[in-house]
Amino acid sequence: MEYRIEKDFIGEFKVPQNAYYGVHTARALENFRLKDYHLTHSYLINAFAKVKMAAANANCRTGKFSKEIRNAINFACEEILSGKYHDEFIIPAIQGGAGTSTNMNANEVIANIALEHLGYEKARYDILSPINHVNASQSTNDSYPTAIKIAIYELINDVEKNLKLLRRALEDKANEFKDIMKMGRTQLEDAVPIALGREFKVYSMAINRDVRRLHQVKELFLQVNMGGDAIGTGVSNHPDYRIAVIEELRKVTGTPITACEDLVDGTQNLDVFPQLSSMVKICGLNLRKIANDLRLMNSGPTTSIHEIDLPALQAGSSIMPKKVNPVGAEFIMQIAYKLLGNDLIISECTVGEFELNAWEPLIADAMIESLTLLRDGLERFTNTVVKGITANKELCEAYFERCPTAATELISIIGYDSVAEIIAKVNETGESYKKVAVEMGFVPQSFFDKNK
Amino acid sequence: MEYRIEKDFIGEFKVPQNAYYGVHTARALENFRLKDYHLTHSYLINAFAKVKMAAANANCRTGKFSKEIRNAINFACEEILSGKYHDEFIIPAIQGGAGTSTNMNANEVIANIALEHLGYEKARYDILSPINHVNASQSTNDSYPTAIKIAIYELINDVEKNLKLLRRALEDKANEFKDIMKMGRTQLEDAVPIALGREFKVYSMAINRDVRRLHQVKELFLQVNMGGDAIGTGVSNHPDYRIAVIEELRKVTGTPITACEDLVDGTQNLDVFPQLSSMVKICGLNLRKIANDLRLMNSGPTTSIHEIDLPALQAGSSIMPKKVNPVGAEFIMQIAYKLLGNDLIISECTVGEFELNAWEPLIADAMIESLTLLRDGLERFTNTVVKGITANKELCEAYFERCPTAATELISIIGYDSVAEIIAKVNETGESYKKVAVEMGFVPQSFFDKNK
Amino acid sequence: MEYRIEKDFIGEFKVPQNAYYGVHTARALENFRLKDYHLTHSYLINAFAKVKMAAANANCRTGKFSKEIRNAINFACEEILSGKYHDEFIIPAIQGGAGTSTNMNANEVIANIALEHLGYEKARYDILSPINHVNASQSTNDSYPTAIKIAIYELINDVEKNLKLLRRALEDKANEFKDIMKMGRTQLEDAVPIALGREFKVYSMAINRDVRRLHQVKELFLQVNMGGDAIGTGVSNHPDYRIAVIEELRKVTGTPITACEDLVDGTQNLDVFPQLSSMVKICGLNLRKIANDLRLMNSGPTTSIHEIDLPALQAGSSIMPKKVNPVGAEFIMQIAYKLLGNDLIISECTVGEFELNAWEPLIADAMIESLTLLRDGLERFTNTVVKGITANKELCEAYFERCPTAATELISIIGYDSVAEIIAKVNETGESYKKVAVEMGFVPQSFFDKNK
Amino acid sequence: MEYRIEKDFIGEFKVPQNAYYGVHTARALENFRLKDYHLTHSYLINAFAKVKMAAANANCRTGKFSKEIRNAINFACEEILSGKYHDEFIIPAIQGGAGTSTNMNANEVIANIALEHLGYEKARYDILSPINHVNASQSTNDSYPTAIKIAIYELINDVEKNLKLLRRALEDKANEFKDIMKMGRTQLEDAVPIALGREFKVYSMAINRDVRRLHQVKELFLQVNMGGDAIGTGVSNHPDYRIAVIEELRKVTGTPITACEDLVDGTQNLDVFPQLSSMVKICGLNLRKIANDLRLMNSGPTTSIHEIDLPALQAGSSIMPKKVNPVGAEFIMQIAYKLLGNDLIISECTVGEFELNAWEPLIADAMIESLTLLRDGLERFTNTVVKGITANKELCEAYFERCPTAATELISIIGYDSVAEIIAKVNETGESYKKVAVEMGFVPQSFFDKNK
Repeated sequence: MEYRIEKDFIGEFKVPQNAYYGVHTARALENFRLKDYHLTHSYLINAFAKVKMAAANANCRTGKFSKEIRNAINFACEEILSGKYHDEFIIPAIQGGAGTSTNMNANEVIANIALEHLGYEKARYDILSPINHVNASQSTNDSYPTAIKIAIYELINDVEKNLKLLRRALEDKANEFKDIMKMGRTQLEDAVPIALGREFKVYSMAINRDVRRLHQVKELFLQVNMGGDAIGTGVSNHPDYRIAVIEELRKVTGTPITACEDLVDGTQNLDVFPQLSSMVKICGLNLRKIANDLRLMNSGPTTSIHEIDLPALQAGSSIMPKKVNPVGAEFIMQIAYKLLGNDLIISECTVGEFELNAWEPLIADAMIESLTLLRDGLERFTNTVVKGITANKELCEAYFERCPTAATELISIIGYDSVAEIIAKVNETGESYKKVAVEMGFVPQSFFDKNK
Repeated sequence: MEYRIEKDFIGEFKVPQNAYYGVHTARALENFRLKDYHLTHSYLINAFAKVKMAAANANCRTGKFSKEIRNAINFACEEILSGKYHDEFIIPAIQGGAGTSTNMNANEVIANIALEHLGYEKARYDILSPINHVNASQSTNDSYPTAIKIAIYELINDVEKNLKLLRRALEDKANEFKDIMKMGRTQLEDAVPIALGREFKVYSMAINRDVRRLHQVKELFLQVNMGGDAIGTGVSNHPDYRIAVIEELRKVTGTPITACEDLVDGTQNLDVFPQLSSMVKICGLNLRKIANDLRLMNSGPTTSIHEIDLPALQAGSSIMPKKVNPVGAEFIMQIAYKLLGNDLIISECTVGEFELNAWEPLIADAMIESLTLLRDGLERFTNTVVKGITANKELCEAYFERCPTAATELISIIGYDSVAEIIAKVNETGESYKKVAVEMGFVPQSFFDKNK
Repeated sequence: MEYRIEKDFIGEFKVPQNAYYGVHTARALENFRLKDYHLTHSYLINAFAKVKMAAANANCRTGKFSKEIRNAINFACEEILSGKYHDEFIIPAIQGGAGTSTNMNANEVIANIALEHLGYEKARYDILSPINHVNASQSTNDSYPTAIKIAIYELINDVEKNLKLLRRALEDKANEFKDIMKMGRTQLEDAVPIALGREFKVYSMAINRDVRRLHQVKELFLQVNMGGDAIGTGVSNHPDYRIAVIEELRKVTGTPITACEDLVDGTQNLDVFPQLSSMVKICGLNLRKIANDLRLMNSGPTTSIHEIDLPALQAGSSIMPKKVNPVGAEFIMQIAYKLLGNDLIISECTVGEFELNAWEPLIADAMIESLTLLRDGLERFTNTVVKGITANKELCEAYFERCPTAATELISIIGYDSVAEIIAKVNETGESYKKVAVEMGFVPQSFFDKNK
Repeated sequence: MEYRIEKDFIGEFKVPQNAYYGVHTARALENFRLKDYHLTHSYLINAFAKVKMAAANANCRTGKFSKEIRNAINFACEEILSGKYHDEFIIPAIQGGAGTSTNMNANEVIANIALEHLGYEKARYDILSPINHVNASQSTNDSYPTAIKIAIYELINDVEKNLKLLRRALEDKANEFKDIMKMGRTQLEDAVPIALGREFKVYSMAINRDVRRLHQVKELFLQVNMGGDAIGTGVSNHPDYRIAVIEELRKVTGTPITACEDLVDGTQNLDVFPQLSSMVKICGLNLRKIANDLRLMNSGPTTSIHEIDLPALQAGSSIMPKKVNPVGAEFIMQIAYKLLGNDLIISECTVGEFELNAWEPLIADAMIESLTLLRDGLERFTNTVVKGITANKELCEAYFERCPTAATELISIIGYDSVAEIIAKVNETGESYKKVAVEMGFVPQSFFDKNK
């Protein structure tokens, strides 16, 4: 491979001739070499393009550099947003340096695209510099968290949309199954009757709270510390830059983004990340509850509950002919486990020191991973599992008929002691509690007929 | 010891003659024998007294039993609320049965106090029964979570009050130290200048978000599933009971408590618990950040930072004379670790099956433990640590003078390259950047004088 | 209350006249005020008595103080070991100061018991001092972790014993149920046949690995840093003290305790604690698996699996007559959740700084809590749950007969395709696969008869 | 794109014409669609090639199929092991179905490579079938966990090697710095003196325990459930197959692999995974301790400790000229946080139901991710951080001279009270304790000279 030589204050370093990234990225690649870990997420790369575009516009407005420079930077950012050059972002998602390397990767790639656009060779940083132009008036410490928040805000929107589709699918099933009576279970033991549809109704209500929780927390990701530079005090900025860059961010992102109330606070305190992550985790817990109930209701078909059938998505065994497993439920449950693990990582990483949190790269990595997993998992769960559920009406009702504790539905009419008598008889004879109740004279047959 | 014999449907069982609890409690004590674990929290015992009082009032209103019975139950509940009989609650906080044992413990103790009040001997359940009267129209599955929520609601109020006192103490320090300049640090390395007071200001802002988060989530604990009995369908209730019991709960608790939108949902889905726990955990993370910064700023006194002094609370060593350790900061940090552990437990336990979550006792235990630890930890941290902090002004300013990167405060005035020249010179000579800046002609001496 | 005045280098402080603890304890009580949290565990108090006795003996041998002093300290330690004075240990288990307060609490209580024994009034520290005598040649930083390890070593022994009893109970059930054929389940779906006894056999094998894991890790708790004082370098010790104190610890504890290879390492690196905690957690995970399987096999009785019956430990519902819940299984599962939470806390707290880990008190608290919960939970699980399990032989075998995939037991004899044909027929007709296999001519009836 | 039609018992499905994978893989891709998550790890793909090769050899030996089929399968497996066709493994690492999809992906790819090798077109499964040949005598439930264990065993070897290199590097530094005296710190406060080299010595001892722990647990991954098929009872196997396949696995892997003592146990109980994961996590905790100490000792350079310098790996700031951050230490610390998160996921996922654990894919994913991160992180930490550390000898010794508590080194010579007098004087005058000790007549100047 051919190389060019770039240098920074540490000294000279070889960079592949054709690379759009430069010396800082090349060093980082060496420092954070991970053979098998993923690189910067695309969402974050695109969010960086938006941040750098907004900064360029604001720097141009405040006289930091010319329209020509601005236009070249804008061109480069548009290229990245169109999906190009993402393979120039070569730094693993886990990295030291609080995001400096990903920020410099963005600065260098943008600078070199811009330079070529202006007709120069790569690395002519005397003309257009990754640091003095692309990163002008910024620090990693404000541009990096701002990019993270922009990426996350968009992902939350996607998750929210998919949550609403799941809520709808559950409501549809609630309606479809609303007249199928079955036995409720507490502590896995037969309890009192409930409609199958009611189960799906309360699943949809849990998901509805998830929608609300995510919606509430989403707004917090529109508050960024852009303009604060190194620690939030904005030592390197033109006095008008801070307001300008926020205005430009709004234009570029199409969101009502604002500056944090205090940029020092916004730079060092990352408590909104565990706040979001917790809500995402709780959504995972609700999904685990729902998917686990579905697995249990689907279990069997011969030797267990089997009140419903989940859609057959794929063959379940190469040994057991016709075996079908609840793979869709298992899929979303494993995603839920990941959300729990990532929430722990994010909580751990929330405790930085003094003016900065050095663990931002891992927070961003875990948060973006959780959101993309949840987004895609929800879509699959809704479409491959929930929508195709069918009820085994006969079995549901047979359980209901046979189950002694079903008689508790009569407590408010005939009292606890009479119900206890019925149950004792049912346990003894194995007959339907309805038959027994009528035979023992507690209610007339017509009672059950009219309640059908 | 002398015993009386009580019985339930499992059979006869010995109960100590003087015990106010009865057979269900006695069996549970056997089943959940834990030699070294704490019992039901007092907060939960008192909340149970309120729940049982409200239920008795509602049952009386709906004709379930007489005013005499109601009054006797009310008397018993008042006795418990006055602090008596708590030692009759003998079941470990960790227990199987989804809370049945603690509920029955409450039912039995209340029944026996009431019986004695009415002039009967203990265990005359034919007169006043733990199940048919004290637990009338209820199930563990609605009365237990209702009591938990009432206990928690009160504890959140206490935490919120203490959080506000901490916020105030931090703001006071922010004001006291607002003119002391020191070096900010990113990634533990010298960065750019900041006022010591500003550090405390942003601590107070993080705590302010904790106040807001707790305040938001608190309202969710006013929504209870009382009236739903076994699974939320309320099979055993009088039609007017559900509204009556909520009205009575409002009177007894003095809060605007309401019924959940759907009692089946409210019975099986416990996602509000991890929602609260997450907010409590995040408060812990903020406290860890703050306390850790304080430990670091206090570190030394000779061989480390030592920008502030934490109050000397106790002798730190039996070997090293005069050693004082940051024990108050260490105390709150360990509490924060507990909150993280409890949050994991609560998350784990949120996934129940079907119509009930069998892990409610552990959820309640962990949640109440976290809230009481946070309440008391906050009070101590505020009063023994934060309020007594003093600044080592000379050292803060000496660092500021000596530190090359302090020169970055000049970037917006003289530009990055000139600052780099100053820093190089400072690194070489060890002189103050101010002296160097003036000598090199970048700014006049008067610049620094007027900024004092 | 009446008070005496004691003082330390911070100043004077009031101590209750009758208290055996002194000024350091009294200050700590103030500093770590927790209204609702438990105090130092008894195991740790007793272990401290052993440590102080060994240190007194070693100090006497190396000439640090007289036999009279030694004897008085020994007397005091024996008193504590006999169960007295534990209520003088008043410091919450969570505390700042890396254990200094609990160590000083022990030093002060021992000193005052000893003083009274010698005929002096309390607080005559000029005669026998908590620091100069009871704590002589020690620091909190070696005596506290040594006491923790001694307490833990004993608790592991208790856990190990109970684990072996559970293993035995499971093996007994394996034997009892070895001829009951039932259907195995993978992913909760009907799979291939297995004997019910085989299920219990493999449970016992998992528990057997837990025994082995705990046994392996136990030895590490016999390596202590006693003699290292503040940081492991032993600055304050007589040259012969280090060997003497280990010899005395062996006598006092009756264990082959040794000094760590390097006392500095043993003082600052606490990785043996998460090593133990992990093994305890894994035991919890195995118990969760076993208890959860038991709950599922017990579920029903009418509407779910119901292959076995767990013993009826207590009435399960005040609304549903005769309802019995798997409370013993739920009990051990919640204990397992606690072990997981405590393992996280211990992992978190393993990362100290420099020469000491300030989070030792919380590590000790969580570790002792986990071990006592596990010890008692195992005992209950074995005796109230496992030993009383009965099999529903008819239902197990009925499932086996009816279940199409039971036919897979014929694969190695008649091949996959023939089995698939049988299963198709069974699915169609609902008949027993054995009947179908015979009717289709794949095997003679005698085949099944002889395999009975 | 052009497609071929394949079918399974669910029905027909389109598969891309050129794909080596088949219908089961194609369905799984649809079922587990994750836009941004990684696919099956290469290590697992290669391990599958070994498993399938061993199974083919064993099946051929026991007469299940011809040498021609065996050779074709072997050819295909060799191709995969040489690095080819890995892009045909298209299933996300997170998947439902307990690994069935990855197993079928392997079966299909191997079958089609083999078919082409034999001169047939892809999908001529009548000649050589993914199920009847490649998967013969196997189930996902034995081949998948066997492949996972093989992959993990190799990765542990790599980690162990890198751990030993780190241990060596730390020992080298211990030797290099053995004569540099500095102050030890407890609870971040000045304590008693220690050599800088001693710090590195005890780091190496912690790492040495990690080596031992990993080495111990490694052997457990040589015990596989191969031959057990669906649930460990081996219903579909030739009687000689079980022994044959283990023999073949030994040859193919070059390891002394054996069968689990009980294949049913080995199929459903996965406790060796959290056992390994815990050891990996503890290694992460030790690395966090070490890296954090290094960050603290490196902190400053002007306003904090600065006893050592970590190598300057990259520029640390675009705003603060010459700023260098401890990025290598931050890198390994973030990896440690990941190990903690993955350990939680693995613990969570260890609890399966009945005869199988459906969460195996996530366990494998998290375990392999942790091991590869640790392997690479260790290599970087050793080579970019530890090896290049330099000591600031003057500063270390200046701290030592100036620090009052340094005088504690005299306790065993002149007693506690005399040391207290020296410390009081040092606190008052700010002079070196050595000077004070000599001036006050406690020791002659020659004492310090000879100890140099």
